[in-house]
Amino acid sequence: MPTTLKDVAIRAGVSTSAVSRTFTDGASVSVKMRRKVEKAANELGYRPNFLARSLTTRRTKLIGLVSNNFHNPIFLEVFDLFTRSLQDRGLRPLLVNLSDETDPEHSVQMLQQYSVDGVVVTSSTLPPAFSMAFRDKHIPVVNTFGRYSSTPEVHVVGIDNVQAGRMAAATLVARGYRKVAFLGGPQSATSSQDRLKGFAEEIAKHPDVTMTTSFATAYSFQAGRTELLRLAQGNGAQTPLAEAYFCGDDVLSIGVLSAAKDLGLRVPETLGVIGFNDMEMAGWENIALTTIRQPIKQIITSSVELMVAMLDEPDRYPEARLFPCHLVERETLRSLPT
Amino acid sequence: MPTTLKDVAIRAGVSTSAVSRTFTDGASVSVKMRRKVEKAANELGYRPNFLARSLTTRRTKLIGLVSNNFHNPIFLEVFDLFTRSLQDRGLRPLLVNLSDETDPEHSVQMLQQYSVDGVVVTSSTLPPAFSMAFRDKHIPVVNTFGRYSSTPEVHVVGIDNVQAGRMAAATLVARGYRKVAFLGGPQSATSSQDRLKGFAEEIAKHPDVTMTTSFATAYSFQAGRTELLRLAQGNGAQTPLAEAYFCGDDVLSIGVLSAAKDLGLRVPETLGVIGFNDMEMAGWENIALTTIRQPIKQIITSSVELMVAMLDEPDRYPEARLFPCHLVERETLRSLPT
Repeated sequence: MPTTLKDVAIRAGVSTSAVSRTFTDGASVSVKMRRKVEKAANELGYRPNFLARSLTTRRTKLIGLVSNNFHNPIFLEVFDLFTRSLQDRGLRPLLVNLSDETDPEHSVQMLQQYSVDGVVVTSSTLPPAFSMAFRDKHIPVVNTFGRYSSTPEVHVVGIDNVQAGRMAAATLVARGYRKVAFLGGPQSATSSQDRLKGFAEEIAKHPDVTMTTSFATAYSFQAGRTELLRLAQGNGAQTPLAEAYFCGDDVLSIGVLSAAKDLGLRVPETLGVIGFNDMEMAGWENIALTTIRQPIKQIITSSVELMVAMLDEPDRYPEARLFPCHLVERETLRSLPT
Repeated sequence: MPTTLKDVAIRAGVSTSAVSRTFTDGASVSVKMRRKVEKAANELGYRPNFLARSLTTRRTKLIGLVSNNFHNPIFLEVFDLFTRSLQDRGLRPLLVNLSDETDPEHSVQMLQQYSVDGVVVTSSTLPPAFSMAFRDKHIPVVNTFGRYSSTPEVHVVGIDNVQAGRMAAATLVARGYRKVAFLGGPQSATSSQDRLKGFAEEIAKHPDVTMTTSFATAYSFQAGRTELLRLAQGNGAQTPLAEAYFCGDDVLSIGVLSAAKDLGLRVPETLGVIGFNDMEMAGWENIALTTIRQPIKQIITSSVELMVAMLDEPDRYPEARLFPCHLVERETLRSLPT
């Protein structure tokens, strides 16, 4: 049988309430008492059971980590950073795979059954209704990589995707590309919509630059590859592809690069490609993707900090935390003209 | 306030014990009673709290999912399959990142605090001591991708890595390669040790074939790339590289392919590469890696089935479940001579 709180109390010669207080964050207990209890607990190998304790503290220290994309390598980095960051703060991620889920209510019920202290929705493709559903049940929620709003309805940590779209367009124009294209992720993703908005706004400032727009069906290698092959086929000889593509993210870009190779297009001479995210693989020497880096690590650290703050102050007014993006130059865009 | 068991009992006009039994797997309750309780529960939107219930059922339905590699894209597939498979059975994965952890005891304590029903260790690079530490505390444990033994000390689900090594060697020999090499993952990984054993045994049957051996520092792109560049440098002009490399896994292979490109070696003419796993990326058209497929989906489904069986029968005698591997031909090995 595992050692109980009562065993520790008997060993230490104190009340069970004193033992309980010793192991409860923020509870009042004298230094002398704490030492006595910790000594007895160590001798007996006692570890507090967080779940049993949760019935009185109403804290399970479980955080639902909700994702719906397990085919985009960047999510391995996202899971790595979230699990480390939560573990560092004594919190534990309950990983929830919503790849096939369309009903926000069902997700809420599932996580309520586990009495999670909070939920991190880490997706720009799950409809905002998912984050709202948690909020409506008073479950602290942070939408990481969610859509920025000056009047956010839930906490959002990420980037200004409109501004990121502007940056991509300005980068292509500065490198002398005059026929450019936006090749987004799913049209329903807020990240795609916002990046397109900024991209189009910036291109509109340059009357000598034309742009075309299309959307891949998913943020995945095959979706990017399929979309460029489709565009190449539809265009025929007289209407060639654009000179440069701003792709929805890095994995789409790698699909586009693969299609370009099959089509015999030299990168960056004949076709320029700029991605988004700067996931680890974008820097692999055989990919060497020019991309816009979103600071994933800061975004995730900040998401966890915000979650921790909400656990103490659940009615905190929703805020948006935005981080700047940066161009990472590699080999898939022409150099700046000298 | 959330609806409680008592609210449901009052609404249904039955005892709280009857409500409790209705929501406890395997507990005795009449069909009539069950209908009455379920009707009231639905009307009130009642969801049982698994964690509160766990104090009486001693089941949390939480399964620790322990990994230490978040830089190998195959683990995204592994997490996807595990989370789906566990969710399908009403279990929930508590993701545990042991990237920087060296003390099995610490991991055990952490998961005991969460009263997990069981633990899946999904790694071939974590020392066997981690699985043993859970077993010693009577926590049901399955080591997925662990080392096969005819007298297993914990449940192991995976492949026969010795046999897989033999298959790789036989494949290279059949394609006419006479100077072959084993380029393993970390020398401490049981998967590397066992694949080397089988590879060397098979090569020894062919006196006209020579082999060399080396190990990368990790199952990662950079480790594979660095190792081939190192071998090329050390060898100089008179002692060229081997004609074909059996790499520890697919991500190492992709690193080796990247180095081969830098070295101006044509694949598969000058250099053959065979990987291991057949992760999604191995099939990307710009990679087209010839590899040995381990049936990840069956392995994970079987791991979850075994875990479910152990929850009912914790003292079940440890078993090894092994699945056959298959060659997947793509573009990085010469064709079979005709």
